[in-house]
Amino acid sequence: MENSLKFDLSQRAVRLSQDRRAVEIIDQTLLPGEVKYLSLRANEELWEAVYSLRVRGAPAIGIFAAYAMYVAARGLQNLERGQFVLRLMEFRDYLASARPTAVNLFWALDRVAGHVNISLSPAETTELILREAEAIDSEDNMSCRSIGEHAQPLLRDGMGILTHCNAGRLATGGYGTALAPIYVGMERGLNLRVFADETRPLLQGARLTSFELQAAGVDVTLICDNMAATVMKSGLIDAVFVGSDRIAANGDAANKIGTLGVAIIAKKYDIPFYVCAPTSTIDPGCADGSQIEIELRSPSEITEQWYQNPMAPPSVKVYNPAFDVTDNSLITAIITERGIIKPPFDVNLK
Amino acid sequence: MENSLKFDLSQRAVRLSQDRRAVEIIDQTLLPGEVKYLSLRANEELWEAVYSLRVRGAPAIGIFAAYAMYVAARGLQNLERGQFVLRLMEFRDYLASARPTAVNLFWALDRVAGHVNISLSPAETTELILREAEAIDSEDNMSCRSIGEHAQPLLRDGMGILTHCNAGRLATGGYGTALAPIYVGMERGLNLRVFADETRPLLQGARLTSFELQAAGVDVTLICDNMAATVMKSGLIDAVFVGSDRIAANGDAANKIGTLGVAIIAKKYDIPFYVCAPTSTIDPGCADGSQIEIELRSPSEITEQWYQNPMAPPSVKVYNPAFDVTDNSLITAIITERGIIKPPFDVNLK
Repeated sequence: MENSLKFDLSQRAVRLSQDRRAVEIIDQTLLPGEVKYLSLRANEELWEAVYSLRVRGAPAIGIFAAYAMYVAARGLQNLERGQFVLRLMEFRDYLASARPTAVNLFWALDRVAGHVNISLSPAETTELILREAEAIDSEDNMSCRSIGEHAQPLLRDGMGILTHCNAGRLATGGYGTALAPIYVGMERGLNLRVFADETRPLLQGARLTSFELQAAGVDVTLICDNMAATVMKSGLIDAVFVGSDRIAANGDAANKIGTLGVAIIAKKYDIPFYVCAPTSTIDPGCADGSQIEIELRSPSEITEQWYQNPMAPPSVKVYNPAFDVTDNSLITAIITERGIIKPPFDVNLK
Repeated sequence: MENSLKFDLSQRAVRLSQDRRAVEIIDQTLLPGEVKYLSLRANEELWEAVYSLRVRGAPAIGIFAAYAMYVAARGLQNLERGQFVLRLMEFRDYLASARPTAVNLFWALDRVAGHVNISLSPAETTELILREAEAIDSEDNMSCRSIGEHAQPLLRDGMGILTHCNAGRLATGGYGTALAPIYVGMERGLNLRVFADETRPLLQGARLTSFELQAAGVDVTLICDNMAATVMKSGLIDAVFVGSDRIAANGDAANKIGTLGVAIIAKKYDIPFYVCAPTSTIDPGCADGSQIEIELRSPSEITEQWYQNPMAPPSVKVYNPAFDVTDNSLITAIITERGIIKPPFDVNLK
């Protein structure tokens, strides 16, 4: 399909095809070398896209899964009701197996599957699935926009912003979470200078954030993670915006590894540090950050990922936590689709 | 020559060959994939080794240059005095051109060239050059050891130590600066757990520090730079040891990019932060860190170095400072070959 380095604000990372027979995604494994939309129809293609991280970012995976259920349901129209339900729920389980730890994947699949009802015809069920998938998509889009809108009073023209990892258009159904304030600010005529941490080991900042901001015409500068301190010290940064994967009841926020260090350095230089996330990210059942389990990932991500030459000695011991937890005391405010939440978070998050 | 992954404590990164006709170095461009000693004799080979960073680290380059002058002088023995001096000083200028910004290269060449005197025979001059080169080598070796010895009261068995970049045996004529406390501690029976920051963009921590520590039998764990905060928060780190490229009169210390962030995070978690450097690194003419000029390097180090796939979008703006300056307020002590210097540094460095 389309194949250029273009990814303007009218394009979506995940969408239903015009003829509604396929889910279309930007293949994120090819970024930033190539912007290529894949058109996915067969069950195996849909599964593989999630498994191989061609589509990534919790909200984007959820939207993808919902549309994938619709595409699968369309392909089962000639079955009788019982067989239709059976085969569709088989597909649900199959797709869920592609990334067994992705909570948003289950959440979206279950939300769509709630409409699968043997008392309805396949055509009726399929129509309900489409409406639910479109609702998930547009709710996420609106949620992103609301986060961006609520953040506007925190911005001013010419401001320098630092971000870490990718919580942008490639990860969501809209403007992203951490990047939404930047896109909305740009729409309103603000000139913002963004510094993107490359975000080792998987380089989401270098490969995705700097790509999508550059494609949208934002003034973005790529730095290594370890350069954040020197750019903050130099006075180049006026605010930090990051996303979050899970926020505890006391405001402690888990996010991509490296976020904690950015927050500590921002505090040192009196730079406000904002966490942007939909309210669905807040987990009232989790009292504080110490209860958030941190996924440890493969050493090879650090020692060999993408490189042709050895990056480290063979069999060296490696510690590779995928996330860290930023203490509530380091967070200036949490920006959600419902508004800005300030400390004390244990009171105000309720 | 030798070709294995062995680099034990008896091996040196730079040495004169047994027959004294060549300078031998570990080719650091092949690390950590291969430990290969090169035997360099021809002028062009000696120049190329410096130019291509096969030998690196300020003290190691100085030692290399001094031995290179000796090897060159040996090859000019059959010339008459005037021709000998002329050709040798031509070689001095030629070698100096290999890395025009390397201060230690000039310093060592000039120290050796101070013995080039037309009133002496080529054989006499050559003997003096050898003695001077050996003095530079052994002084650096002793300086490293002294730094390591002075640091011992700061260590205890089972301690966790974090280091950044490579200030070890591959960069000096001995045990290194930041790594000397670890090697001396190990000799004395201490079990130390070392965490090595990979040190983007050039990965000196991953490629060199974790290699040389592992080769010496030290318990070393490789982490990405952005994981330093989470390992410190987890209580895994009891002290930070780093080197320095230049220390101002007030104790502000320039070192590899990323050091400042490590120092800020260490302060947050009340972890002592030690700068290890010979007294020659202290520049009394430099009042404070703001006077230290920071070298900006090529974007390609961040966007394409070593990678086969694109790491960032084409032509993205990149900021790539090679060093940062750690404020004296973040430094617990500076450890030199003459002892431990504590704050106030502006008084005690004198």
